[in-house]
Amino acid sequence: MQLGLIGLGRMGGNMRERLRGAGHEVVGYDRNQEISDAASVAEMVEKLSAPRVIWSMVPAGQITDEVIGQLGELLSEGDIVIDGGNSKFVDDAPRAEHLATKGIGYLDCGVSGGIWGSQNGYALMVGGSAEDVAKAQPIFDALKPEGPYGFVHAGPVGAGHYTKMVHNGIEYGMMQALAEGWELLEASEYVDNVPGAIKSWREGSVVKSWLLDLLDRALDGDPELAKLKGYAEDTGEGRWTVDEAVRLAVPLHVIASSLFARFESRQDDSRAMKAVAALRQQFGGHAVVN
Amino acid sequence: MQLGLIGLGRMGGNMRERLRGAGHEVVGYDRNQEISDAASVAEMVEKLSAPRVIWSMVPAGQITDEVIGQLGELLSEGDIVIDGGNSKFVDDAPRAEHLATKGIGYLDCGVSGGIWGSQNGYALMVGGSAEDVAKAQPIFDALKPEGPYGFVHAGPVGAGHYTKMVHNGIEYGMMQALAEGWELLEASEYVDNVPGAIKSWREGSVVKSWLLDLLDRALDGDPELAKLKGYAEDTGEGRWTVDEAVRLAVPLHVIASSLFARFESRQDDSRAMKAVAALRQQFGGHAVVN
Amino acid sequence: MQLGLIGLGRMGGNMRERLRGAGHEVVGYDRNQEISDAASVAEMVEKLSAPRVIWSMVPAGQITDEVIGQLGELLSEGDIVIDGGNSKFVDDAPRAEHLATKGIGYLDCGVSGGIWGSQNGYALMVGGSAEDVAKAQPIFDALKPEGPYGFVHAGPVGAGHYTKMVHNGIEYGMMQALAEGWELLEASEYVDNVPGAIKSWREGSVVKSWLLDLLDRALDGDPELAKLKGYAEDTGEGRWTVDEAVRLAVPLHVIASSLFARFESRQDDSRAMKAVAALRQQFGGHAVVN
Amino acid sequence: MQLGLIGLGRMGGNMRERLRGAGHEVVGYDRNQEISDAASVAEMVEKLSAPRVIWSMVPAGQITDEVIGQLGELLSEGDIVIDGGNSKFVDDAPRAEHLATKGIGYLDCGVSGGIWGSQNGYALMVGGSAEDVAKAQPIFDALKPEGPYGFVHAGPVGAGHYTKMVHNGIEYGMMQALAEGWELLEASEYVDNVPGAIKSWREGSVVKSWLLDLLDRALDGDPELAKLKGYAEDTGEGRWTVDEAVRLAVPLHVIASSLFARFESRQDDSRAMKAVAALRQQFGGHAVVN
Repeated sequence: MQLGLIGLGRMGGNMRERLRGAGHEVVGYDRNQEISDAASVAEMVEKLSAPRVIWSMVPAGQITDEVIGQLGELLSEGDIVIDGGNSKFVDDAPRAEHLATKGIGYLDCGVSGGIWGSQNGYALMVGGSAEDVAKAQPIFDALKPEGPYGFVHAGPVGAGHYTKMVHNGIEYGMMQALAEGWELLEASEYVDNVPGAIKSWREGSVVKSWLLDLLDRALDGDPELAKLKGYAEDTGEGRWTVDEAVRLAVPLHVIASSLFARFESRQDDSRAMKAVAALRQQFGGHAVVN
Repeated sequence: MQLGLIGLGRMGGNMRERLRGAGHEVVGYDRNQEISDAASVAEMVEKLSAPRVIWSMVPAGQITDEVIGQLGELLSEGDIVIDGGNSKFVDDAPRAEHLATKGIGYLDCGVSGGIWGSQNGYALMVGGSAEDVAKAQPIFDALKPEGPYGFVHAGPVGAGHYTKMVHNGIEYGMMQALAEGWELLEASEYVDNVPGAIKSWREGSVVKSWLLDLLDRALDGDPELAKLKGYAEDTGEGRWTVDEAVRLAVPLHVIASSLFARFESRQDDSRAMKAVAALRQQFGGHAVVN
Repeated sequence: MQLGLIGLGRMGGNMRERLRGAGHEVVGYDRNQEISDAASVAEMVEKLSAPRVIWSMVPAGQITDEVIGQLGELLSEGDIVIDGGNSKFVDDAPRAEHLATKGIGYLDCGVSGGIWGSQNGYALMVGGSAEDVAKAQPIFDALKPEGPYGFVHAGPVGAGHYTKMVHNGIEYGMMQALAEGWELLEASEYVDNVPGAIKSWREGSVVKSWLLDLLDRALDGDPELAKLKGYAEDTGEGRWTVDEAVRLAVPLHVIASSLFARFESRQDDSRAMKAVAALRQQFGGHAVVN
Repeated sequence: MQLGLIGLGRMGGNMRERLRGAGHEVVGYDRNQEISDAASVAEMVEKLSAPRVIWSMVPAGQITDEVIGQLGELLSEGDIVIDGGNSKFVDDAPRAEHLATKGIGYLDCGVSGGIWGSQNGYALMVGGSAEDVAKAQPIFDALKPEGPYGFVHAGPVGAGHYTKMVHNGIEYGMMQALAEGWELLEASEYVDNVPGAIKSWREGSVVKSWLLDLLDRALDGDPELAKLKGYAEDTGEGRWTVDEAVRLAVPLHVIASSLFARFESRQDDSRAMKAVAALRQQFGGHAVVN
């Protein structure tokens, strides 16, 4: 089938390639004209026959809002917009309601798989009406991995981004668990061959996982990760997960700690620990570092 | 090659089967004579030609100590004892030193894979001398999964159980991350199809892992885990991991929280939270539950 | 000076008493006519001479919104409204802006001290303009404890409730630290006299604190807190504190854990721990509790 | 009464002063002859009439072991040794048993109060037999604060150091709660007067505490703690508290997190966060910092 695809960066570009490989006709648009199939979003829309399906794969936030606003102007009744970016789930319902006034459908689709999805397929988590999902199903089928996994229609509009958000929260916790264990192995005098230990777990062990494979891959090139600083950004989903835990009164010790560890990694010095140092000096006369 | 194998329970029995399938001659001993190949440990030893390799697969602690003590009496110079149980790493060096006085070698081998290892192979983490490892290598090769992963000679005596301990610490953290995420999905009004969300992550996603596969498998039979109580034992390695973090000054927020969550799961009521309730009543006149 | 005081419950009633003891003229209003000094808010306003200062001491949320809306109708230029309830800091600026259109001033005042404030004085944290604070200062001076502490003009509108929110976050953490320590003492075989240990810390120790005094007081009546269930509500400030930590990228391990412990205390069973139990059963055949 | 006091440093020197102020006869010994009342421990012992009470106030570990070993040689039946240092509770029983073979009594006494104890009195937590405690009670009475608090006979030998250990664990958690709250206040745009906010809590608030007083005191000299690095040592008790939590299966989220925060404060870079950065780069192509 035909698909309009807005945003041809690291993710969108790979998705275009995978979709074309599956026989779909993709008209991509990107601000970078060198990789774009159309001079403008309007031209992209014109190249597609109604009813159209347009996939937005641009950064969450203002840029996505602008793209969806623009599509609301250009599209017609019966068309469908899919937001495949990392939008916050609360932004989906207002968009869907706005588009619905013009008879345009809306699906939110969380996409996992990173830069490997082109080859392995992407895990897709979709929110929206069953009718709209059915219309876009050939696209989802081409993007997802082969076999019974990698796709879910999780619920109404918002459910896709919500599911992706929780997925990322879990991802934070699993990464941190691996990271803590690796640090402990490195710190201990008992184990000589730490990269070999990681490698041994890749098959047959309970912690067998794609993240473990990637850690092994990183250690292959840099066995003590000496080239990297212990500095990690966060892209929003981890924060929203903790906010949701607070809203819903769900205890989330591990995921929250993993998020806080990223915050700490970006601090040059810790104000909290200045206060602890000050208190130790005050009550015990303990030495401080200036 | 020949192997003596002590302990033919859930793990040992499966291992005997896998080893025999690979063409090795296994003389197994178990207190349960119906499954044992020998009437006693002594008879088992007699059935093997020197130099012998004996694998102990009995519960860690006193039973393992007794088995290894007995082997010290029965074996001769050039034989090797392998402890494949979940022993604490600090127990390995004393045993190795004791056996060394008689010229008997000692290897500690952490074994992961649970009840699935018979079919998938077991991840093996070994500590000991290179010479002793080489002598037992055909056994390790038969037990481990096929391919480049699933085995490491991690360092000297103790390194195998240490690596397995950290593996289990990571396992605690990964399980808790999955568990927290699942609880949040269940608590939220946004997602209708929680088992489907879990299933969608099994391919193509960043959290793709064996533990996720097992969670999906559990949900297939009981979509809300309604048949289970939220009660989880711990088998020692998680505790030792946190003790090591304390000894080595390694921050382990996620793994420690995961361990504490298990402790909490076994409490009928929380004394700490009684104290919190009492304090709220004292300062604010807040209602309490009696 | 004169003060209108709306809400004469546990907090407001005590405050009226303390203010009158200091020589101020308080016209209190409460829906409960038995304790009210006026038949309606309107009558209360009429009984005061302009420029008036009105203190709202009703539950945060809709009730406070209604009271402040009503005051906006009844008051005149030069009057001041003080919200002494536990409102969320983000609600303050819109209220202040609305009242400002009529020339009415607004102060937000976080109040700590609970049911003991009547006797000890209340710690007051105020947000608003210096001019408005100055007009109400005699009231603040009467409510606060004697001496140099117990009052701060923390910043512009919102700063008072914000400071109170952080105060409560710290309170959660301190309470949980005490609660954890008490649970550990109770669990250990080393200490016979746990209530005595708590009592010993009340003077001369580093943990000397009002919360400790209250724990001792609670144990005096019920040495093992056997009459209480380990169940603790939360009133919002703890949640907002964690939300702010997430917004501002401040690591808050202790305060977030304390909040999560309250969430846990209210669960009959833990879904997360059901998942952990399920996983242990799946990979290890470990026993579960049904 | 008479007391021999070994170790006249920051703590011991102040204690000698407080005891003499209360009318007791103290013969102090210190390696630093300028402040010592005796040329040797032996001379100190000779200057005291039997039955003697000797208080050891030297660093925990080997030095304390040596002092107590020496006292075992020099003292006689009916004498009493008190260890007032921060010894680990497990070390007490072996010492008591050794001294008991010569009829010498042993008490372990946890001492809190830091450099302020000389003036405020010290909180004392004592383990040992009722008879031995009674013999030393006049000393305890002079060292403790006036009034009903500041002293407990917590249980048999070991109970004193155990109680002090838990006290310090609580102290870690309370300090961290204060530190986190202060960091959040500093990070927020809502509060202008952070030192004033801290000061306001010193009277009338729920978080009123000695540690808060000390934080205010530190901020008086350095309102943003700009002169201090966020670096905090730990002196053992926090670690032992977490080890005990692990042994006794008591969930200690807050205290363990506080300990881990100190570990983190001493790391130049975080290995765990290198691993997290590596994983983000691997799966998402996310930028890293080198």
